[in-house]
Amino acid sequence: MLAVYFDQKPELQELPQPAPAPGEVLVRVRLAGICRTDLEVLKGYHGFKGIMGHEFVGTVAGPAGSPWLGKRVAGEINLGCGQCDLCRRGLSRHCRQRRVLGLKGRDGAFAPYLTLPAANLHAVPPQLADEAAVFTEPLAAALQVLEAIPVSAAARILVVGDGSLGLQISWVLALHGGEIHLAGHHPEHLALARPYGVITFREADLPPGDYEVVVEASGSPSGLDLALQRVRPRGTVVLKSTYTGRYALDPAAIVVPEVRLAGCRCGPFAPALRLLARGWLDPRPLIAGTLPLSRGLEALDWARRPGTLKVLLDCSCED
Amino acid sequence: MLAVYFDQKPELQELPQPAPAPGEVLVRVRLAGICRTDLEVLKGYHGFKGIMGHEFVGTVAGPAGSPWLGKRVAGEINLGCGQCDLCRRGLSRHCRQRRVLGLKGRDGAFAPYLTLPAANLHAVPPQLADEAAVFTEPLAAALQVLEAIPVSAAARILVVGDGSLGLQISWVLALHGGEIHLAGHHPEHLALARPYGVITFREADLPPGDYEVVVEASGSPSGLDLALQRVRPRGTVVLKSTYTGRYALDPAAIVVPEVRLAGCRCGPFAPALRLLARGWLDPRPLIAGTLPLSRGLEALDWARRPGTLKVLLDCSCED
Repeated sequence: MLAVYFDQKPELQELPQPAPAPGEVLVRVRLAGICRTDLEVLKGYHGFKGIMGHEFVGTVAGPAGSPWLGKRVAGEINLGCGQCDLCRRGLSRHCRQRRVLGLKGRDGAFAPYLTLPAANLHAVPPQLADEAAVFTEPLAAALQVLEAIPVSAAARILVVGDGSLGLQISWVLALHGGEIHLAGHHPEHLALARPYGVITFREADLPPGDYEVVVEASGSPSGLDLALQRVRPRGTVVLKSTYTGRYALDPAAIVVPEVRLAGCRCGPFAPALRLLARGWLDPRPLIAGTLPLSRGLEALDWARRPGTLKVLLDCSCED
Repeated sequence: MLAVYFDQKPELQELPQPAPAPGEVLVRVRLAGICRTDLEVLKGYHGFKGIMGHEFVGTVAGPAGSPWLGKRVAGEINLGCGQCDLCRRGLSRHCRQRRVLGLKGRDGAFAPYLTLPAANLHAVPPQLADEAAVFTEPLAAALQVLEAIPVSAAARILVVGDGSLGLQISWVLALHGGEIHLAGHHPEHLALARPYGVITFREADLPPGDYEVVVEASGSPSGLDLALQRVRPRGTVVLKSTYTGRYALDPAAIVVPEVRLAGCRCGPFAPALRLLARGWLDPRPLIAGTLPLSRGLEALDWARRPGTLKVLLDCSCED
């Protein structure tokens, strides 16, 4: 099968179709999404080597006799060992030995087939289009903000960053009932938040004032600068995006106002699928375009261009 | 009166005795403590200019008719405006217009007299020696760890830093019931934690393993390195110490393990005085020595020497 394989650099390679281990299923990938973390992989994140990609929707194609056979699924991307203290406490997403689909020790979704433990699967409701279902993983990551810290429905929250993740976070928080402000650089992106009641600003035009909660989703050091300037004393900055390089943190900016910085990564799939299935969120306006898997390298280049939202790979044609 | 005055550099100066404003009292300072933050003032922290010092115990000497007259007191160091949203929400310690005794816009305690709002005072129980009562402010700051985050009595906590603050934090957490590990560099300091049941390690000998909570009280970037290495996924690092300069933060060290970083500054005086009065904590072993106010500059030099615990100034002789 054709796949986007990374080893120092991304390449299209012809590789054998994977075989599911006991407890696993074989998934025929339909659509896959390119995420900012994939672009970090291109820069050497985690030293990953293998088939890229972790956002997908597909159909279970094996093994014969699996109760999942023929079902359309999204899949959680962390594979814990199942044995350690963290896995036993329900924190398998944080297992120290974990593998992560397309990111760490495990081949991913930029291919016609992938394998995953059946325990990682979530059924996609029939009314949900593939183009929406492929957002289950990033939407779950957006929902994780609500898991990371207690968020009052009455909260006034600033989201920094108008990329795909920042927009999805602003939607999720708006559905939660809060007064949500979104600061970004791209008027055409900010416009995608307004139908959800989100109040949008170009970063330079953000009015004075501070916020109980600021979510940093810009993926840049200047975003964390802004977040720390705008968080209220005793407030919380949710740190959502990673990037290569270091942030020059002034410890006094945390200690003196007694601010909290809360890291936040992967999130719960079930509520993401519920919100999508009920039609309360429609992520499809985030799609910049879809290319066939055979043009995967071109798709990565496209996703890398500043201001590009979600680029999808159609993996259903290749075999 | 003689005072340790800072303007670019510390100097002994003859200054007029301060007069209490309405709502304020005049305090005859008995003992004052030199804190690491005072040493930061010497490096230009906050651009402070004025009489230094914020840790003290004294006796109220005016105005005539004050119900506090003649009482021995400790005093909270933050002076909020009383009008803003933060003050009205009980967060006057975080008032954006606040002045801070000996640290920001307000003359401090390295003098025979200081003034403070009566609302900032706490009566010192009669059985408490001045040498213990002078620790009320730093002990309150140690207790603030328990305000900053929910701490289970069953928690296993690492405290990094065996200076005066780190030791007091280890004591307070031990009294709370937890299994407390303290990592430091000075065997003679670490020994002061063991009577409280704290398990102590030289930093290089800290056994492998991670912690639900790590308190960083070393005042150095390497302390935060250690804290982030040793905190468990989804655990919390309480950031207690500030220092001049920046920390090179790897955002992934926060985001990927979903760690929280919680800033923590001044704390509650009432429980500090209760713990001291009941004799459950005796901070006097932390005293490196006491010098008269007239030798204040020498005392600052002493406090600055690495490995020095608490240097006190006797302000009762000068006038």
